[in-house]
Amino acid sequence: MREYRLERYQTRTDLALEERERFEEDNVEISGVELEEDYNEKTDIRVTKVKITTEKGAKAMGKPKGIYITLEAPNMSVPDENYHREVSVELAKHLRLLLPKCDDEQSILVVGLGNSQITPDSLGPKVIDNLLITRHIVNEYGKIALGKEKIHKISGIIPGVMAQTGMEASEIVRGIVEETNPDVVIAIDALAARNTKRLSRTIQIANTGIHPGSGVGNHRNGLTEKSLGVPVIAIGVPTVVETSTIVNDTMENLIHAMEESSQLKSMGSTLRMFNATEKHELVRELIAPHLNGMFVTPKDMDETVKMLGFTISEALNIAFAVE
Amino acid sequence: MREYRLERYQTRTDLALEERERFEEDNVEISGVELEEDYNEKTDIRVTKVKITTEKGAKAMGKPKGIYITLEAPNMSVPDENYHREVSVELAKHLRLLLPKCDDEQSILVVGLGNSQITPDSLGPKVIDNLLITRHIVNEYGKIALGKEKIHKISGIIPGVMAQTGMEASEIVRGIVEETNPDVVIAIDALAARNTKRLSRTIQIANTGIHPGSGVGNHRNGLTEKSLGVPVIAIGVPTVVETSTIVNDTMENLIHAMEESSQLKSMGSTLRMFNATEKHELVRELIAPHLNGMFVTPKDMDETVKMLGFTISEALNIAFAVE
Amino acid sequence: MREYRLERYQTRTDLALEERERFEEDNVEISGVELEEDYNEKTDIRVTKVKITTEKGAKAMGKPKGIYITLEAPNMSVPDENYHREVSVELAKHLRLLLPKCDDEQSILVVGLGNSQITPDSLGPKVIDNLLITRHIVNEYGKIALGKEKIHKISGIIPGVMAQTGMEASEIVRGIVEETNPDVVIAIDALAARNTKRLSRTIQIANTGIHPGSGVGNHRNGLTEKSLGVPVIAIGVPTVVETSTIVNDTMENLIHAMEESSQLKSMGSTLRMFNATEKHELVRELIAPHLNGMFVTPKDMDETVKMLGFTISEALNIAFAVE
Amino acid sequence: MREYRLERYQTRTDLALEERERFEEDNVEISGVELEEDYNEKTDIRVTKVKITTEKGAKAMGKPKGIYITLEAPNMSVPDENYHREVSVELAKHLRLLLPKCDDEQSILVVGLGNSQITPDSLGPKVIDNLLITRHIVNEYGKIALGKEKIHKISGIIPGVMAQTGMEASEIVRGIVEETNPDVVIAIDALAARNTKRLSRTIQIANTGIHPGSGVGNHRNGLTEKSLGVPVIAIGVPTVVETSTIVNDTMENLIHAMEESSQLKSMGSTLRMFNATEKHELVRELIAPHLNGMFVTPKDMDETVKMLGFTISEALNIAFAVE
Repeated sequence: MREYRLERYQTRTDLALEERERFEEDNVEISGVELEEDYNEKTDIRVTKVKITTEKGAKAMGKPKGIYITLEAPNMSVPDENYHREVSVELAKHLRLLLPKCDDEQSILVVGLGNSQITPDSLGPKVIDNLLITRHIVNEYGKIALGKEKIHKISGIIPGVMAQTGMEASEIVRGIVEETNPDVVIAIDALAARNTKRLSRTIQIANTGIHPGSGVGNHRNGLTEKSLGVPVIAIGVPTVVETSTIVNDTMENLIHAMEESSQLKSMGSTLRMFNATEKHELVRELIAPHLNGMFVTPKDMDETVKMLGFTISEALNIAFAVE
Repeated sequence: MREYRLERYQTRTDLALEERERFEEDNVEISGVELEEDYNEKTDIRVTKVKITTEKGAKAMGKPKGIYITLEAPNMSVPDENYHREVSVELAKHLRLLLPKCDDEQSILVVGLGNSQITPDSLGPKVIDNLLITRHIVNEYGKIALGKEKIHKISGIIPGVMAQTGMEASEIVRGIVEETNPDVVIAIDALAARNTKRLSRTIQIANTGIHPGSGVGNHRNGLTEKSLGVPVIAIGVPTVVETSTIVNDTMENLIHAMEESSQLKSMGSTLRMFNATEKHELVRELIAPHLNGMFVTPKDMDETVKMLGFTISEALNIAFAVE
Repeated sequence: MREYRLERYQTRTDLALEERERFEEDNVEISGVELEEDYNEKTDIRVTKVKITTEKGAKAMGKPKGIYITLEAPNMSVPDENYHREVSVELAKHLRLLLPKCDDEQSILVVGLGNSQITPDSLGPKVIDNLLITRHIVNEYGKIALGKEKIHKISGIIPGVMAQTGMEASEIVRGIVEETNPDVVIAIDALAARNTKRLSRTIQIANTGIHPGSGVGNHRNGLTEKSLGVPVIAIGVPTVVETSTIVNDTMENLIHAMEESSQLKSMGSTLRMFNATEKHELVRELIAPHLNGMFVTPKDMDETVKMLGFTISEALNIAFAVE
Repeated sequence: MREYRLERYQTRTDLALEERERFEEDNVEISGVELEEDYNEKTDIRVTKVKITTEKGAKAMGKPKGIYITLEAPNMSVPDENYHREVSVELAKHLRLLLPKCDDEQSILVVGLGNSQITPDSLGPKVIDNLLITRHIVNEYGKIALGKEKIHKISGIIPGVMAQTGMEASEIVRGIVEETNPDVVIAIDALAARNTKRLSRTIQIANTGIHPGSGVGNHRNGLTEKSLGVPVIAIGVPTVVETSTIVNDTMENLIHAMEESSQLKSMGSTLRMFNATEKHELVRELIAPHLNGMFVTPKDMDETVKMLGFTISEALNIAFAVE
């Protein structure tokens, strides 16, 4: 289905994995992009590591250089007696590998991006709500108050969205970083996927921070090492698909239906013969303009985002527990 | 574009107005369905009254006999200094006309249907949150406590959704009605529209109650005079469209694009020649099965549903204020 | 300090344990009231069982006949890595002993009493939010959907408070019980304690239901086997003390201070010589009337009630998991 | 009742009015403190302006130099058809007088202090929730987008409390101020009163900012022109009283009761003869240490704080609407 690649460019994805898949389908080797996969049968978690090592690779992928780790856990959004602790443990492991110097005492600011009032965008705020916050206790009473020899100072913020504050989340976070000087920032965000099958079952961790234009509500202007002056690790879970995904899916289903139908076979072939520019043009017309401000999300997202929030905050609590 | 009517049957709408429009476009007179329209230039509110008077009309419309009043106020979801009081006042007027014996003292139970945790489904709960509740005060201290000669006893309930309670909203409401004996029930609900342009700017009031299978989350089993034993007035605002709407819109845009394109003109014509059954088949294939549990909603629905909730609760407060 | 007993009658407590303590201090044996105590060193949980077996005992205790089990876990409100699972497990054990026929499949309605908008009164609603609800799944798909041979049907309701609904919580629950016919009702509620030291560290389970006049906001009119027609188990945690507690504490501290002071020694003695009626009179005057609508609660109750809600809902989830 | 002055020092008040009252009762003229009173019979609002003009006055009052305006509106917490618009209008008038250069276009940051999860402390967050935020719209689309010739840029932030973020609210606000450069900061906060009769019916506006140690939860470290570099206007409403208030009230009632009683008359006189140090000592002993982390608040504070939040946010919306 190579022909439909170009329309797909229209469909935004925040997942490096989905970006990488484009090339995979074409059996194209991309220089500057390394791929590692690992599957744990017992936990049913698949871990994919995409390393973008060169500028060329970054350009091909449309994502900055860095490490992108994806955990796929098909049952993650299904209720479970121990709240999917196996996912929390696996996520904690990878997070610690990305955390610079995580065996030393660190000051870590966790940022819960997104709009707590929009169900699929409330993942970030939910994670902060359940996080073990320690910075103020260590500052006021010392480590002794928490009974530990070594301890990270954890702080957390829910910066809200522009419609609520009148400010970019990045302005708020930048101010707080300058004032409180954390060693590293971890930003949690709800993402948009291209494929509805990835919703709520995929967690992406990246050491590249967050770049303008990604995420559900686009509610920030970049949180990166460059803009904040400290390393930024981004953790995201896709909770919505863009409406354009559905337009694309419909198109692909239509072509497929045409090819199956004796009556329409020739039409299907005709569409396949379109060149890239023509297809671009076509899809642009198919996406009604009023759909741009909309998103598509499952009806039970309230339960899902609650569970995901707990699973991720537990992962952070585990990762931050220095021995 | 008459040919695409049939696919449209696939797309669910809770609005009698949208159901009526199907026929209108075809210039079909439906016996047993009366239509009245009124436009107020000053307030920019259009009121459409659809009366379904016969069983035949009910069948044609796919909705039970009764009165359906629709207020269209294009600016209703735009912030406004007096919180769209003109809409509240207009809505109160029509509500009073549908309320049986509203000049006598009545006991009125207002039901806020929907899931308060799913943004576009939280309209009903939000209305209850802002409602002036009086039943307990009148019962305990008498009318004198509220300084009125005549007063309705207002009670309100947010029954929640099945995933939260394990019970149908209808079971909960039926139990409460039997126990507290209100004279009338008013049920508030978020609706699904066919046309994205109707979202958040249309209010429907109907004296027919609520029937299984309608509404955003389908979270009830019918609240009608038959099931509850007292008249039920339903107030709804469309806050989501079904994903099938987008598939339909894409299809229509595709046909249109084909007709405009010299290259594809013949294809467009081919599609138009499909008969009803063929088209049914085609659209069924185009709607991916996993889209069924999903909905489409604007990204700023949090602000919108907050305003709508206030506008409707104020309408109820105005309507219930007996002189 | 026997003399101050009578004033203490002024101070409401929902804890049978505190009621029992009155007599204990006086070394009075009350006929019809049995006491069992058990302390588990490992978990640091003290379990006290008060059985009121006769009407005489009920009268002396000011509480209906039945079994009152109290768990005291001093660290329950302190954050903890596994969310005090040891308390959940202990509570589940006692709950199962009180649940009639809990080895058979049962239909259980859990009621979360209280006002979700008042922090210390939101315990009941919080428990329901985290409860594993199964009734609708079993009803619709059968036990097979949950992969169990035997399963309880769990439903849950947050009836709200009178100021929100205009109805007594008991009216709402009675209606729902009549409509959905559960085998047993479990009611969760925030309680008022006499002693501030008991706040947030004591859980009381009783098989007597809930009686008018108890609880933080007094938001119901009795949920008992008599009023609902099915057994009612009540679970409560004290989260507030009445303002009269503080008046009493002040008084006792004053007497004590006087006795320690050479200058005031005689005054302390004078106060001790008051007879019951005089003391009643005195305390009534000391409690300012505007304090009646007020309560006293710790400043960090938001964190505490969140943890307690989780601990109790986990206890229910454990207790309801039939093998 | 001059003798009890000193104990009263124990009881914290955030209201300059209450601080001033101490002296008033004694008919003491304080140099450097000016007092103006105004009562509007129609609206039943009393406005008291306390100006502290010298360091000596500041020391006597225990509050920094500046203007403190208090609005007393006895019915403010009673539900009302137009949501107490008369209070909003009056508050807006005084706010504009304190706002530096409010006829020019200003960039204004409104800070909603307090813990949204603790009912009486959630006033600040509630005000931000209802505020008309414009900064992002003006920045992105210009004034034209809002149809005004002149417009203030309004931004808002809910910094949360230390237990939630690990950071002082003042750190967060300072960072945001440095990053977004507002011309003035307005901080909204729930206050502690000395007198329960002042709860929920008094609004204080001061041009002195907020100083460490005041407010319900003490959740910040000072927001002043000195710490932020821009003028800070503070708006507060008392929603709690400290538990020490109740101890004081009890003591005073006790003395009064003693004086009325023939039997105890001499004791009352004895207590009055205590010197300051002795009384200090006595009250310190009467306040049980565990009461320090507690507060006293009315049971219906959820309704009250919702109304107050709306009344104040409307006042801000009115004040910020430049002609």
